Amino acid sequence: MTTEIAPTVEAINPELVTAGVPTHWYNLAADLPEPIPPHLHPGTKEPVGPDDLAPLFPAGLIAQEVTPERYIEIPEPVREIYQMWRPSPLFRARKFEQALNTKARIYVKYEGVSPVGSHKTNSAVAQAYYNSVDGVTKLTTETGAGQWGSALSFAGAQFGIDVEVWQVRASYDSKPYRGYLMKTYGGTVHPSPSDLTESGRAMLAKDPHTTGSLGMAVSEAVEVAANDPDARYALGSVLNHVVLHQSVIGQEAVAQLNAVEADGADVVFGCAGGGSNLAGLSFPFLREKLAGRSNPRIVAAEPSACPSITQGEYRYDHGDVAGLTPLLKMHTLGMDFVPDPIHAGGLRYHGMAPALSHTVELGLVEGQAISQHDAFAAGVTFARTQGIVPAPESTHAIAACAAYVADSDREEVVVIGLSGHGQLDLPAYAEYLDGGF
Amino acid sequence: MTTEIAPTVEAINPELVTAGVPTHWYNLAADLPEPIPPHLHPGTKEPVGPDDLAPLFPAGLIAQEVTPERYIEIPEPVREIYQMWRPSPLFRARKFEQALNTKARIYVKYEGVSPVGSHKTNSAVAQAYYNSVDGVTKLTTETGAGQWGSALSFAGAQFGIDVEVWQVRASYDSKPYRGYLMKTYGGTVHPSPSDLTESGRAMLAKDPHTTGSLGMAVSEAVEVAANDPDARYALGSVLNHVVLHQSVIGQEAVAQLNAVEADGADVVFGCAGGGSNLAGLSFPFLREKLAGRSNPRIVAAEPSACPSITQGEYRYDHGDVAGLTPLLKMHTLGMDFVPDPIHAGGLRYHGMAPALSHTVELGLVEGQAISQHDAFAAGVTFARTQGIVPAPESTHAIAACAAYVADSDREEVVVIGLSGHGQLDLPAYAEYLDGGF
Repeated sequence: MTTEIAPTVEAINPELVTAGVPTHWYNLAADLPEPIPPHLHPGTKEPVGPDDLAPLFPAGLIAQEVTPERYIEIPEPVREIYQMWRPSPLFRARKFEQALNTKARIYVKYEGVSPVGSHKTNSAVAQAYYNSVDGVTKLTTETGAGQWGSALSFAGAQFGIDVEVWQVRASYDSKPYRGYLMKTYGGTVHPSPSDLTESGRAMLAKDPHTTGSLGMAVSEAVEVAANDPDARYALGSVLNHVVLHQSVIGQEAVAQLNAVEADGADVVFGCAGGGSNLAGLSFPFLREKLAGRSNPRIVAAEPSACPSITQGEYRYDHGDVAGLTPLLKMHTLGMDFVPDPIHAGGLRYHGMAPALSHTVELGLVEGQAISQHDAFAAGVTFARTQGIVPAPESTHAIAACAAYVADSDREEVVVIGLSGHGQLDLPAYAEYLDGGF
Repeated sequence: MTTEIAPTVEAINPELVTAGVPTHWYNLAADLPEPIPPHLHPGTKEPVGPDDLAPLFPAGLIAQEVTPERYIEIPEPVREIYQMWRPSPLFRARKFEQALNTKARIYVKYEGVSPVGSHKTNSAVAQAYYNSVDGVTKLTTETGAGQWGSALSFAGAQFGIDVEVWQVRASYDSKPYRGYLMKTYGGTVHPSPSDLTESGRAMLAKDPHTTGSLGMAVSEAVEVAANDPDARYALGSVLNHVVLHQSVIGQEAVAQLNAVEADGADVVFGCAGGGSNLAGLSFPFLREKLAGRSNPRIVAAEPSACPSITQGEYRYDHGDVAGLTPLLKMHTLGMDFVPDPIHAGGLRYHGMAPALSHTVELGLVEGQAISQHDAFAAGVTFARTQGIVPAPESTHAIAACAAYVADSDREEVVVIGLSGHGQLDLPAYAEYLDGGF
């Protein structure tokens, strides 16, 4: 038959910027002019030491929580798993640009290609690895919409660790798909508050019909881990080691962007709930800024319903409702704050990562509150132009960007951090399209 | 601050084989020793001509249905959209290999990275484009689980075409998420049979409680398009032009595999419902085989509940229930066959693409029936090892591959076509894990 070699496959896709997988995590603390304030022991109010954290976290993660090192090598077993989907794509969103009638060049860094559909997997895999090194056989955690719970369930399956998840009841009841995903990976999931823990029973006694909150779920997961010598606790955001793991996003994005835009980014937009997504994306851009190689603005898009950066106080507060966690210096709406049940479950957290809060105080990051309506309006435009249905969390970053560049003649380079896809959040889109909000 | 450039991003990801986006579609018909039997007019039983098809399809697609050309250039507007997610990844599934205790090297070609999560987008974009060239303002179509309906809704949004979808009622009721996805892209969706068409009303009169079938939904969509001069009909599989568009999958896979495996593939596994996924994946591999460059076996994995290749007759039959479509020479279980309501909605079709049926007759492709239980068992193993939750359709290919390579010392190179992800099919996984089937 034919003997020709088909001349039909081009060498590169010009719309998809390629790069490799980071070999190290990047720690912005090493480059900041002032140190991030330490976490305090809830009893003594003194800075927590390794011994205080040992009941909850493995040694490798405790070290990362306070390390002054700029670069920390990613262990090979973690990198092997990252390579299943990393580097995540950075792409030019030309159709979205056209819809916005802008001369800005919009690049999207897309974490929805990870197995569970969000950036959460980046830290989940690292946390499961360090726990496996210490011989931990069970991990407990909390989850809101379920992105983190499913990411940790996947990571646990990779390292032979049982994962037990307390999911905020409002999400557990209304969005069961992510619970099914946790079970598919072999995880176990309970609605929170549950009657399985002392703190859960106390919350139920106070309000038997509570729809739960992330702070309540944290208390339950921490309590179970603290009382089981073979178990440890895993937190999906907020802490320094989680922020560190997410730096793979920004390192790739900087390298990918530099390959096509010599001057780097002018503005970087990301959504911020606990802060790990935005910190992971933006800290390598801040490295570039602090080194004088570029000068990007960083915008933290947060929901109007839970505006910890734009409306919260910067002070020490607990990470959970029961007050079991260390005191963290952060922007907070107060540990008892229960936000409206907006669809962006991952942004319904009363506080903000101490590392990110610190950069806000240093003037390196600015907050912007976005209404749920504006967020979804931007999400629908993005879906119809670029095809990807964004996670409700990510729509906040898209909306902030859209408002900034729409009908603009400024030829700026902007980056949107698209933290995940919204395929499991489609009922929220249906509600929006039906005029529900 | 720091002035060093971070040495933390590797040049390439060794686990992810890179290649470009095809510039042409590949037509296996040009290389076959015998022509694919023509479609026949349902009235005259003569081969259908362009005039017969004009009420349903635009000129560009009618030409592709009968073209003898080996390569057809992909129009630039289509290629631009392909570049949003193509080339799709080909990756080595090492963790799955370990779980299967095999020396086979398993490569996975993954179409779930497309905006709607499956291979269907490859043809949807092409079909919307050729319709837009002819000034068509509305497309009608059918869908089962909703992969095709959502793909066409996305494609319509790209070219300013209204899309109206008839979805098999069983799926419309039990799996609403893909309906929400169609609406998010701007499409309209009706359960089928509906009271909006003559054929739908006739089916409802016969059985008011019918859960519908793809054949019934085709009849409704064809009827509406045939009666509206501004509308045309779009079919998501079966026809030659659909198979042609899907050839981007296999062309990329051949190029990607050749970059790491000098002798190409030994066996290629894909799932087959209407046939476009498997044909798209395998026909470029058959090009290599017919040219003597490699010698792969091609396995069509189909559900035991709808075994058109392994149990059907090879004869002329209608593509729909009402007998409105041309007669197609294919492996068929009969146009009135209603398969059990298995979760792999995309595999519940009574017939098989004439192009693929023809290669089966020529001995180039072999069928293998897989039970739903075995399919999901393999899907869960794949999810826990590789992270990706496969579409129920794709689990059939994974199961066929797993059965072949498990506990084997043969150092073969096998390829699995992973046609899509199963994030919107998670209730089916939950049912399987609860022992439901």
